[in-house]
Amino acid sequence: VAIEAIEGKRGSAADLTGLVSDLLAAAGVDQPSADATARAVVDASSRGVDTHGVRLAPWYVKMVEGGRINRRPNVAFALKSPAVGHVDSDNGFGHRASFLAVEEGCAIAARTGIAAVTVGRSTHHGATGVYTLAAARKGFAALGMTHADSMVVPHGGAKAFYGTNPISFAVPVPDAEPMLLDMATSSIPFNRVFLRRATGTPLPAEVAVDENGETTRDPHAAAALHSLGGDDFGYKGAGLAAMVDILCSAFTGMGHGATFAPFGGPDYCRPIPIGHFFLILNPATFQALSMFDARIAAFLDDLRSTPARPGQRVMAPGDPEIAEAELRRRDGIPVDRVTWQGLVDAAMRYGVAVPDVRDTAETAGAEEVPVQ
Amino acid sequence: VAIEAIEGKRGSAADLTGLVSDLLAAAGVDQPSADATARAVVDASSRGVDTHGVRLAPWYVKMVEGGRINRRPNVAFALKSPAVGHVDSDNGFGHRASFLAVEEGCAIAARTGIAAVTVGRSTHHGATGVYTLAAARKGFAALGMTHADSMVVPHGGAKAFYGTNPISFAVPVPDAEPMLLDMATSSIPFNRVFLRRATGTPLPAEVAVDENGETTRDPHAAAALHSLGGDDFGYKGAGLAAMVDILCSAFTGMGHGATFAPFGGPDYCRPIPIGHFFLILNPATFQALSMFDARIAAFLDDLRSTPARPGQRVMAPGDPEIAEAELRRRDGIPVDRVTWQGLVDAAMRYGVAVPDVRDTAETAGAEEVPVQ
Repeated sequence: VAIEAIEGKRGSAADLTGLVSDLLAAAGVDQPSADATARAVVDASSRGVDTHGVRLAPWYVKMVEGGRINRRPNVAFALKSPAVGHVDSDNGFGHRASFLAVEEGCAIAARTGIAAVTVGRSTHHGATGVYTLAAARKGFAALGMTHADSMVVPHGGAKAFYGTNPISFAVPVPDAEPMLLDMATSSIPFNRVFLRRATGTPLPAEVAVDENGETTRDPHAAAALHSLGGDDFGYKGAGLAAMVDILCSAFTGMGHGATFAPFGGPDYCRPIPIGHFFLILNPATFQALSMFDARIAAFLDDLRSTPARPGQRVMAPGDPEIAEAELRRRDGIPVDRVTWQGLVDAAMRYGVAVPDVRDTAETAGAEEVPVQ
Repeated sequence: VAIEAIEGKRGSAADLTGLVSDLLAAAGVDQPSADATARAVVDASSRGVDTHGVRLAPWYVKMVEGGRINRRPNVAFALKSPAVGHVDSDNGFGHRASFLAVEEGCAIAARTGIAAVTVGRSTHHGATGVYTLAAARKGFAALGMTHADSMVVPHGGAKAFYGTNPISFAVPVPDAEPMLLDMATSSIPFNRVFLRRATGTPLPAEVAVDENGETTRDPHAAAALHSLGGDDFGYKGAGLAAMVDILCSAFTGMGHGATFAPFGGPDYCRPIPIGHFFLILNPATFQALSMFDARIAAFLDDLRSTPARPGQRVMAPGDPEIAEAELRRRDGIPVDRVTWQGLVDAAMRYGVAVPDVRDTAETAGAEEVPVQ
């Protein structure tokens, strides 16, 4: 599984972080929110998760300008019990609220072994894996989820009900980057449909349905997504989506995903108060750390040395992104032309300086990235 | 999704529970272990989860006789922190240890809002959903997982590494049975392959691989299973399997699934010390219960009233099993001929009385049951 090739510009993580943060601040966003959002999208882009990376910044600016996202939220954390906390994001950026949730969750879990921290009145937080990874880099395991607007038909359904409702799990690995799973509970994200419309290529089998809920490979006919498992086993992906939706709604106090206005507009004015759910585990509470580390290392060694099919390689969750991050640290982070133009346009409007970045050399292969 | 039709005998839950419990006790199993195991398998069978129901009892007797399962374990619970507990199953029946884990987890979560309880040195515990459902019937939400011996190829792999590693999630529903998700992270269980060999019908697409790891629909060529998502998106099912394996090994102190001897023998003498992982959440800690209940009811109403494709019905996770349980309460629980013969043979050997059950009338339709 290789990362999608991108043609456009290429900048350093520091340059892109500065640009996104400056842009949001210039649009009136307070510094903690601007910084957290820039950190999150550049973290995703730095690992090849371009669908949830810098690409999102122009959309975020649009939501700030429309008023859907609160520029200066009163973000508040409260303990609900010795092991449960809640972050009220006050309709501010979900990235800031989610970093805070994970930080407080680690502090709780250091005392109690495990913590659940919910986030309410939040907004889109980019890639959920950014936050579970942040916890794992501090030595904690983390499970993270968010729900979203309707894009995915329930099994047997003719109309979208679930969001792409991702599940992320990260666990620290001795002397290496954490293992990171970060997956939508649909097979593909809807922007893969847009991409295939543009390229005129058929969709993979059993990933999308037409307006009557019938499975289609025609990207122009595709009106909604199948859940993971497709025609025969989509009830499994849908079941996971239900779990995510419940943990992010009934447990956070928000409504379920199907009650949300479309994230993609046309209304950019009214807040869409969504929820996230984080679980933080302190490995040292469960096992002696030396034993825990040895078990994780043995699991990964054993998995990666499983015999592969010809031309394939057996990888652990997140391995492709770890490899891509290495390349991008060396070569810079690519930003596609459309996104770059959106950033430049917004920078012009706000009088923000654009860093000096270079053109990408075209890279071979255009395989797709395995994230939501 | 209908429940698989079964031809054989049909008995009441009380009759079958008594038979399985008496049989295990006669084989030397202590009463708490025999009762917990009988309760678990009959609970699964009562909801149509026949793959993990009474069918397993003859196999359990075999493992007891071989010595793999400890007949009289010293099952011990210990708190590891205010919110984390561990059950040492002492190689005894996983059912008893898992019921205990969930019971202790509910007691912890009533104080702290959330609890993780791991189980170590355990054995096969049947359907994981039995335990999450037990928690949900007491008003708690629960997430349960278990790992297992290698049956499933990792994405790109030519050889089995993961077990079918199920994930179960249950949540209480006001004035109704809990919502229950209970799914393997492979598309099908391996006994579906055996069934298709017997019936000579091809497997569904992208659910199994041959001895070289190539996808096959020939049940006779099938040597291992694909993870959920198949050829293109199996990295997602495999990623979930990795999460389950880690939570059930590094966190419980056990080895990962690929280190286990095959559960199906030929060695029935040596223990295979597996782990389970349970998470219990107290909804009342997160939200006012009236609000929580209203959110769950609204979610389920909205989901079930989503427009369906012609001839289909949109259901919530566990709806088919709730309907089947209603029928089986009325008509009795069917037990297939092979399983019944196995129970009768064992009963004869141990001089256990066999309840008077009647023949099943053949039922129409043989669709497959959506469980691991």
